Amino acid sequence: AITGKEAARVSILITGGTGIIGSCVAVELAKEGHRPLLYDRRLDRTFLGDVQDQVEVIQGDVLDLDQLVRIIRAQQVRTIIHLAAVIIPEAQADPYKGFQVNAGGTVTVLEAARIEGCRRVIYTSSRSVYGPVAGEHGHPTYRPLPEEHPKAPRSVYGVTKLAGELMAREFSQRYGLQVICLRFPALYGPGRLARHGEVALHSRLIEGAMAGVEVVVPRGAEQRDDLLYVRDAARAVALAAGAEGITSFDFNVGSETMVTLRELVAILEGLYPKARLRVGPGLDPVGLGYIQYCRYDCARARKELGYRPQYSLDAGVRDYVETMARLGLQPLAELSAGGGAAGPALGAGGS
Amino acid sequence: AITGKEAARVSILITGGTGIIGSCVAVELAKEGHRPLLYDRRLDRTFLGDVQDQVEVIQGDVLDLDQLVRIIRAQQVRTIIHLAAVIIPEAQADPYKGFQVNAGGTVTVLEAARIEGCRRVIYTSSRSVYGPVAGEHGHPTYRPLPEEHPKAPRSVYGVTKLAGELMAREFSQRYGLQVICLRFPALYGPGRLARHGEVALHSRLIEGAMAGVEVVVPRGAEQRDDLLYVRDAARAVALAAGAEGITSFDFNVGSETMVTLRELVAILEGLYPKARLRVGPGLDPVGLGYIQYCRYDCARARKELGYRPQYSLDAGVRDYVETMARLGLQPLAELSAGGGAAGPALGAGGS
Repeated sequence: AITGKEAARVSILITGGTGIIGSCVAVELAKEGHRPLLYDRRLDRTFLGDVQDQVEVIQGDVLDLDQLVRIIRAQQVRTIIHLAAVIIPEAQADPYKGFQVNAGGTVTVLEAARIEGCRRVIYTSSRSVYGPVAGEHGHPTYRPLPEEHPKAPRSVYGVTKLAGELMAREFSQRYGLQVICLRFPALYGPGRLARHGEVALHSRLIEGAMAGVEVVVPRGAEQRDDLLYVRDAARAVALAAGAEGITSFDFNVGSETMVTLRELVAILEGLYPKARLRVGPGLDPVGLGYIQYCRYDCARARKELGYRPQYSLDAGVRDYVETMARLGLQPLAELSAGGGAAGPALGAGGS
Repeated sequence: AITGKEAARVSILITGGTGIIGSCVAVELAKEGHRPLLYDRRLDRTFLGDVQDQVEVIQGDVLDLDQLVRIIRAQQVRTIIHLAAVIIPEAQADPYKGFQVNAGGTVTVLEAARIEGCRRVIYTSSRSVYGPVAGEHGHPTYRPLPEEHPKAPRSVYGVTKLAGELMAREFSQRYGLQVICLRFPALYGPGRLARHGEVALHSRLIEGAMAGVEVVVPRGAEQRDDLLYVRDAARAVALAAGAEGITSFDFNVGSETMVTLRELVAILEGLYPKARLRVGPGLDPVGLGYIQYCRYDCARARKELGYRPQYSLDAGVRDYVETMARLGLQPLAELSAGGGAAGPALGAGGS
């Protein structure tokens, strides 16, 4: 990690910096003595908590090449953490916009980094680039999935993230720009329900338990999945920003285990005896139309980034609840109960 | 094919319509009684020959969604043939622009087609989406390569074409828009040297022989490759525009044979006894840095599109020479000799 005097000289820019992951990355970097620049369409500082004064928030569009170049130059940005993206349901509903922002935005950030001679870009990608997972990597054997697994996305979101990955690798190979691609599995964390809506299945159960409202998930209590707590994801990003001697391009970053909704419900019922969580039996709670439940092989991230997941499901849920309290946020009863405006769920997967 | 009265009512729009392939597609469609609209940055009608009066040329940018929508609506366009793209060396030299035009342009055309409820979009892709070809599909066995072969591009151009393909499939599956993707191998034809520059290796030999200048290719005389004449490519596009009952998304469209530069040189020396063509022995004349010489399996295009390649290498070369004469074009001596302004060759592959 970059610390001390060096940190004071070089700036880190985080696109999507006020988002769910971005805010947690800002917290991680602030702990290391950085003052990251958060670049986002939204100036909402809700999730920044007590690092408000250790960051700078700049409003901007990830497709605005000129502004990105100006900021990188003016602030001597050497490392860009590129998180800005349209979320899964938005990309599915508007493929044109989803492609422009996710794929086009990534290429714009890469181009700005190339023009200004940045050292490194961290790109966060998603399990959706792999597409359907079957055979030994699927139910019931779940052999850990390595980075070499073929990329055959079956969603607009997955296509947009893969296009960004492939262009990131081209920029990395052609120019002196080091690009590190981190692929997250399903994520959960405070704010996902507020920002992503009903697709945040695990957040619906957690905040529903907190609010005491009934949450019904028709099926899938036994489905095992690799579920990553947002602070572990953010820690991986911070490690990637500071790591030396990296030789790989892409890294699977997961929880190194699998959990079920039944286990999540049991934890929540322990914390909230009045919780009314109804999850039907069986597999596939998400119902994407194809199966992508799997467990990541994280050996590469362990070796090259020094990554270790810190949050068991129990620890993640407790931190979620504590963080909500610390930030003064109320659980979202209506969204938890499934009464939000979002359409049919399109997956808790992805970043 | 759409003919007669129906052809008079519905319009076909060809993006990149004044280009090397586009002009040949216009000729094919004019033969069927269509009056295609050619949408291009360039108003240059050089390659349209005697179908000048059977087409309309509209100047425009493939990234201009509003103009595309207006034209589709005003002209009752039901089928779009999307050929507009930045060529290989331009995409390699400027990945940002290459991605915007090739991938972003494709998504813009798809979005315009979706908004206006078009029936069909033909998208022309490239062998470069497959990336390196090895094992049984490579030297020396060259087992014909089917469409299912994994897509692992290793060039900016290949990434931009694959991103377009993946988004085309998403649009095709989500909306009532039928998208047909045609993948070409290496292409040759009149105009490629003028428009694409030195990377048009086969055109350098042909026009060099015509001009009587010395052409030196350091190595690769024995390399076999699937080399498609532009009129066969254009015929496949016209067939795809009119075919009924298509169930597949992607089609390999090749020559169904392999030829060498040695064979090309022998044909040219037969036609031009004073030709001074010097091609060194061995394999890999192109020197991409990876190997993509292969032969396509075209069974699917035969079955669903009724496609049959018409031009042997000998017939293609003769048509090339005759077409140049008919269009009143002189062979480009300087470019043939390798004295053009283009940088290091980056492959005669791709469309």
